[in-house]
Amino acid sequence: MRALDIILEKRNGKTLSEEQIAFIVNGYVDGSIPEYQISAFLMAVYFQGMTSVETSLLTKIMIASGEVIDLSSVSGYSRNSLVDKHSTGGVGDKVSLILAPIVAAAGAQVPMMSGRGLGHTGGTLDKLESIPGFSTALSPAKFAEIIQDCGFAMTGQSGDIVPADKKLYALRDVTGTVESIPLITASILSKKFAEGAQHLVFDVKYGSGAFMKTPKEARELADSLVRTGNELGRGVTAVITNMDTPLGTMVGNFMEVEESIHCLESKGWNARLDNGKLIVEGESADLMEVTLHLSAWMLVVSGVAPDFPEAVEKCLKVIENGSALECFWKNAELQGGDKDAAVRKIGTRDGLVRQEITADSDGYIAAIDSYMVGSASVILGAGRNVASDDVDPDVGIMVHKKPGASVKKGDVILTLFARENERMKSALQYLENVVELSQNPVQPPVMIREVIGV
Amino acid sequence: MRALDIILEKRNGKTLSEEQIAFIVNGYVDGSIPEYQISAFLMAVYFQGMTSVETSLLTKIMIASGEVIDLSSVSGYSRNSLVDKHSTGGVGDKVSLILAPIVAAAGAQVPMMSGRGLGHTGGTLDKLESIPGFSTALSPAKFAEIIQDCGFAMTGQSGDIVPADKKLYALRDVTGTVESIPLITASILSKKFAEGAQHLVFDVKYGSGAFMKTPKEARELADSLVRTGNELGRGVTAVITNMDTPLGTMVGNFMEVEESIHCLESKGWNARLDNGKLIVEGESADLMEVTLHLSAWMLVVSGVAPDFPEAVEKCLKVIENGSALECFWKNAELQGGDKDAAVRKIGTRDGLVRQEITADSDGYIAAIDSYMVGSASVILGAGRNVASDDVDPDVGIMVHKKPGASVKKGDVILTLFARENERMKSALQYLENVVELSQNPVQPPVMIREVIGV
Repeated sequence: MRALDIILEKRNGKTLSEEQIAFIVNGYVDGSIPEYQISAFLMAVYFQGMTSVETSLLTKIMIASGEVIDLSSVSGYSRNSLVDKHSTGGVGDKVSLILAPIVAAAGAQVPMMSGRGLGHTGGTLDKLESIPGFSTALSPAKFAEIIQDCGFAMTGQSGDIVPADKKLYALRDVTGTVESIPLITASILSKKFAEGAQHLVFDVKYGSGAFMKTPKEARELADSLVRTGNELGRGVTAVITNMDTPLGTMVGNFMEVEESIHCLESKGWNARLDNGKLIVEGESADLMEVTLHLSAWMLVVSGVAPDFPEAVEKCLKVIENGSALECFWKNAELQGGDKDAAVRKIGTRDGLVRQEITADSDGYIAAIDSYMVGSASVILGAGRNVASDDVDPDVGIMVHKKPGASVKKGDVILTLFARENERMKSALQYLENVVELSQNPVQPPVMIREVIGV
Repeated sequence: MRALDIILEKRNGKTLSEEQIAFIVNGYVDGSIPEYQISAFLMAVYFQGMTSVETSLLTKIMIASGEVIDLSSVSGYSRNSLVDKHSTGGVGDKVSLILAPIVAAAGAQVPMMSGRGLGHTGGTLDKLESIPGFSTALSPAKFAEIIQDCGFAMTGQSGDIVPADKKLYALRDVTGTVESIPLITASILSKKFAEGAQHLVFDVKYGSGAFMKTPKEARELADSLVRTGNELGRGVTAVITNMDTPLGTMVGNFMEVEESIHCLESKGWNARLDNGKLIVEGESADLMEVTLHLSAWMLVVSGVAPDFPEAVEKCLKVIENGSALECFWKNAELQGGDKDAAVRKIGTRDGLVRQEITADSDGYIAAIDSYMVGSASVILGAGRNVASDDVDPDVGIMVHKKPGASVKKGDVILTLFARENERMKSALQYLENVVELSQNPVQPPVMIREVIGV
């Protein structure tokens, strides 16, 4: 077998065999195929695509390139209840922090492997590490142990998981081959399955602050994730959600932890089921609508609940009776977090500069651009321009009004918190036109556009 | 400027600027852009193509990457009469050996830079070097001097000509990006213009023994060569010719030299103009029809003749009066060839094994597959499987009957000459089905399908 022949077949639109895909992936990982052939292959895949069978084979082969965490041997939970959630990334997206304890308290197990913030989107690991003492570098054994003890664990990707993805992603990043649905699909699925998840729920976001700008692109990826996951015999559901506006009321690392704790304390939102449809109200309504949808589907896909309405009931119950919050703190302590220090920190903004952005006329909020808010939070120091940047755990942006709200001239819409004036000035300049006001009433955005794979 | 952005623009179907194309080509040549980015770029070009303006810019930038032979400073001929021919490669294609002396004797100058055989196609340099003593490694100064002395010179590509093409071709060869019309166009034109040719005539072949299998593909390349050449301000004509059958009666290195000398001696063919159309008859008719067409268009494109019929008359005249043959031998001597030794060698097949392939029934020859004949001649040792192989100057295949000829059972159609029995056996096995016989009369193929850019 020769790499050149495989490139030519893909270039000419043929469907590749398992042997051919394995030859390329393994040859790249072991260094026997040079990068210039791999990048030509990736560009051919960009143009010719892959079938869901090819994509599932690619995923399988990528998983086999490294360590696979086998959580099925850990006692106390069944293999089938291992379920994780993956988001394509957004602004103010602290869903994982609220969802993991809810799902764990409701009876499934969540082996969660997360990433760090980059560009305008934040990262779950950075948020968790803003809790004093919290460690996200868990060994596979510690990972399994903490899941057993509290139902979920949060870790960074281990160095030995899917080395093929690390190499391929680095090459795609510099050769213009990132935006390929089958390559994105295999990259996401391989990592999630290698970490030990049996089933998956995806939050595929679209809008200004999302990787996919349109619902159409989001649907294409969601379809591919579901079809490929099913091809591999896994339960996969994808929820397509709106990311035009920052999610919830806080953007920033510890500020998002605060909002997560509030939400787990039932503050800032209330929810009810109306004929099987979930209705959420309150200042954190958009965040909790997304969180509860994803949580409920995780319970369905893992068989813990028979259908969506019952799954929602379960989620609401574990929040109401405090067991989800308890689960959150238990996990934090198991991962080294100092609960008392964290609680003391909530609501304090010691040593930070504060500036408000107010309504310049009466009207209705039509939009608060999430890409701009995300980018401004990076300017403030909450995120990263390049992977080697440090993040500031405390700075961030509060969002007091959301699209649909009516405002009077002078009402505070955003509050920015910075470590020093220079960054504050840059962020304010960047946010000059972030709020769009309308003279006519505006409907808040529909958060859940579609659920695929149910 | 970043290579990644240029890859993305081409991938997304944008037209690149001169600066962007130069950045990629020069960055590759000087090593500042890694091969994996270049190969991704080449694959994007394969899928998205290039406009003729982009292709002409690429050609110009590739030419500027190395030495350009400036023949305009040599006295005795005008810049405008420097014209070369390029063929996309075929079987039995000894056209250059006959055409160069004809065109030179008729008053144009031919700076001819040729290649070696590879795969089933032969190479002009290998054929010339089968003349005892003949050297094809000429310095630029020697090249110019020989053109001045006899009107044409035949050399291999100098190491300093278009280094960008050498690097790009080597990479394309291993990354599945050879078959791209704009990349092929720029590769061919850059070499031809850098060698000092002012105008060009192309023999774009189609058929079983050609690089392009269909007339449609041949026309696409011909169009691109003509449009891009014109974009660069040069006169370019492309003749689309048939390569289903080996050209002429001989395939092999010195055997093709023999046929060339015969043709220059007016043996094996005769020609006339009928209402401006060239009619050629005889056993080497197909070869001479192609040769005379290409020669005549070279005279037209270089301004030596005002139109095709007058150009043909000039060509026929220099063959008839012996000046083309004289030119052939003068060039051979200037390039170190031993005329007496060559003449003594003609027709001798000393020390070779001989085998005939005969008609197995009465009928008409429908086809003699040129790809198979070319491949068999490689098996005999006349060509190369890989560039480092040596070639045997003497072995080869004689083609006694051509498509359209009627044969009786037992008539000899091909004669093979090998150095030893083992190779003969393999070649005979390979040629088992090379001749297609029909019970009904067959028209000989139309050799000249189309002339583009006149």
